Amino acid sequence: MSIFTASATAPVNIATLKYWGKRDKTLNLPTNSSISVTLDQNDLRTLTSAATSPDFKSDNLWLNGKEEGIKGERTIACLRDLKKLRKELEDQNPSLPKLSEWGLHIVSENNFPTAAGLASSAAGFAALVSAIAKLYELPQSMSEISKIARKGSGSACRSLFGGYVAWEMGDKEDGSDSKAVEVAPVDHWPSMKAAILVVSDDKKDTPSTTGMQSTVATSDLFQYRIKEVVPKRFEDMKKAIQDRDFEVFGDLTMKDSNSFHAVCLDSVPPIFYLNDTSKKIIKLIHKLNEQEGKIVAAYTFDAGPNAVVYYEEQNENKVLGLIHKYFSKVPGWEKVTEKKSQFIDSNIEFDTDAYKGVSRIILTGIGPGPQSTDQSLVNDKGLPK
Amino acid sequence: MSIFTASATAPVNIATLKYWGKRDKTLNLPTNSSISVTLDQNDLRTLTSAATSPDFKSDNLWLNGKEEGIKGERTIACLRDLKKLRKELEDQNPSLPKLSEWGLHIVSENNFPTAAGLASSAAGFAALVSAIAKLYELPQSMSEISKIARKGSGSACRSLFGGYVAWEMGDKEDGSDSKAVEVAPVDHWPSMKAAILVVSDDKKDTPSTTGMQSTVATSDLFQYRIKEVVPKRFEDMKKAIQDRDFEVFGDLTMKDSNSFHAVCLDSVPPIFYLNDTSKKIIKLIHKLNEQEGKIVAAYTFDAGPNAVVYYEEQNENKVLGLIHKYFSKVPGWEKVTEKKSQFIDSNIEFDTDAYKGVSRIILTGIGPGPQSTDQSLVNDKGLPK
Repeated sequence: MSIFTASATAPVNIATLKYWGKRDKTLNLPTNSSISVTLDQNDLRTLTSAATSPDFKSDNLWLNGKEEGIKGERTIACLRDLKKLRKELEDQNPSLPKLSEWGLHIVSENNFPTAAGLASSAAGFAALVSAIAKLYELPQSMSEISKIARKGSGSACRSLFGGYVAWEMGDKEDGSDSKAVEVAPVDHWPSMKAAILVVSDDKKDTPSTTGMQSTVATSDLFQYRIKEVVPKRFEDMKKAIQDRDFEVFGDLTMKDSNSFHAVCLDSVPPIFYLNDTSKKIIKLIHKLNEQEGKIVAAYTFDAGPNAVVYYEEQNENKVLGLIHKYFSKVPGWEKVTEKKSQFIDSNIEFDTDAYKGVSRIILTGIGPGPQSTDQSLVNDKGLPK
Repeated sequence: MSIFTASATAPVNIATLKYWGKRDKTLNLPTNSSISVTLDQNDLRTLTSAATSPDFKSDNLWLNGKEEGIKGERTIACLRDLKKLRKELEDQNPSLPKLSEWGLHIVSENNFPTAAGLASSAAGFAALVSAIAKLYELPQSMSEISKIARKGSGSACRSLFGGYVAWEMGDKEDGSDSKAVEVAPVDHWPSMKAAILVVSDDKKDTPSTTGMQSTVATSDLFQYRIKEVVPKRFEDMKKAIQDRDFEVFGDLTMKDSNSFHAVCLDSVPPIFYLNDTSKKIIKLIHKLNEQEGKIVAAYTFDAGPNAVVYYEEQNENKVLGLIHKYFSKVPGWEKVTEKKSQFIDSNIEFDTDAYKGVSRIILTGIGPGPQSTDQSLVNDKGLPK
């Protein structure tokens, strides 16, 4: 059996300047540019193996051990684009095997529980296009490949790079200029750390696509956000990253998270992603920064109640000291058992029951983009191991 | 002992187009015009008696049975303005007793518990200026008197009228054109009802003056709200009241409440007044309107978690039927014991524990402005009875 395989891992990214609003739903073209930090794949990543063979009659997909098939239009759009690029190569060089004509088997797994409520679609689509691009030996740049990932899930395009990443919204109707670019690599500012407080919630959040459509259609404040607020913030945040200026970076990150949730609240009907626990965490971080007299930690919240707190490594004992004081009972601290003795005790007062609203903490940092790997999820028949 | 006394009652008003932002903190001049509905004084009112006598050496104030003295700058500003107007009268007619030169005793009581967290300062300052204006036999119009109440508490100016009231922001620096006017009297649209769900909250809210100052200084979205969103909404809402169009009125009321809370969230640090119970009530009202296929109930939230739900009397059995289904255990339903049999049962599903976040319900309706009353809180010595 002639079979070709390739595997890649891709990271989760958490926006510091939020993507909220599509100007084209099919192509996932955004109403504003956005910026994100790529997180360390040791803690959060998707591993995807892609296999192809003349014996595979059709495309198929297995996610976290379950056969899903190729159902979603977005997945279909990604595969179509990737096969088209492969076809171009084959047309240029007829000696190449005709992979573009064969079925694709895709097997994908996350190293974190889906139940954590972390947006896994970004890492998922980034790993999918990375694995297939590698399988097809595509010569395109990561920015080019990011346009394909973008069609799978908008924010997935940002997971094609490590470090600090911008998604330039572009203005062309076909989306050919709506792509991810590197703002700065990991080693430009490697001290960035992230603590993710996974907040329990009994209600089901509004799906982000639905929420975006509603905000675009109904919020008065939204138009001002995308036209006036974000364009300036986009430039300011890129500069803060270039300058490694955490105070400006953190200030803009918190402002933009709140601005995004504000336009959600201004939608009809209003959309709420922050719950009372989220709000407590927001207040805690502001208290810390106030006590320090400068911004040493910055929260951001996506379309859900989970808090992501960014901070620099040199402030870790202060920031984690405070968080640990009030959230020591949640799982996830094992990773830093040896560091705990250095945590700085805080005299900040806080709701001692707040930890009950948090299910776990994930301590991580900044990391690189997609990686090739020899670890494969497919066996020699092109099926999940 | 020569003593002059007068008493007046004044109502609570709840804004449907929110006042949020001061352009002058001392004069309480707002950054936008606002609109409110005046509530029935049978349920919520302040009664104030004012007494003056040549024997009173200084001004004094008793609130809800407690001697407070005249401490606040805002109260002092109101008394100064009222005495100045009285002085003009005395100068024009020297036969008048020189009340403007004597001390004032002011005794004030609410007919609702302060603990309810309902903004009582509007009714309080409206009753204070009404009682003293009556005592001084001032000839000024209610709009003129409203400017004095405004200096006490911005929204108090709207409690000088019954029915539907606008506070025109004005643009003069001295505030001489920032006053309340009647949009429509009670009998123009008397079927308006209000159900107030008093939401329990363990945290202390940001005081509204502090919150406003912060929003004005730090929210990007706020500027757009006051310049673009509110001016149009102000005209649209006045028209909806004139047309007795509950669908438009309710839609704008809910939108404006959410817009106000959105700019609070967009402030640095963010200000949160809505809690998880508030959000549940918001969702419940949207579910009801969705089921009805039209807006039959509209919520609004001031600077706190309490919900005020407006509806028209013809939909009372539907609206209260739904609210009663899920909040029957909270006190306040005694008033409608006889009506309960007509409540329409709802099949809307809702959190059956939500009532735990509500401490009482106040069922009321629209009502008139300040009223003269023979009921006096002062004895023949000008002290609290």
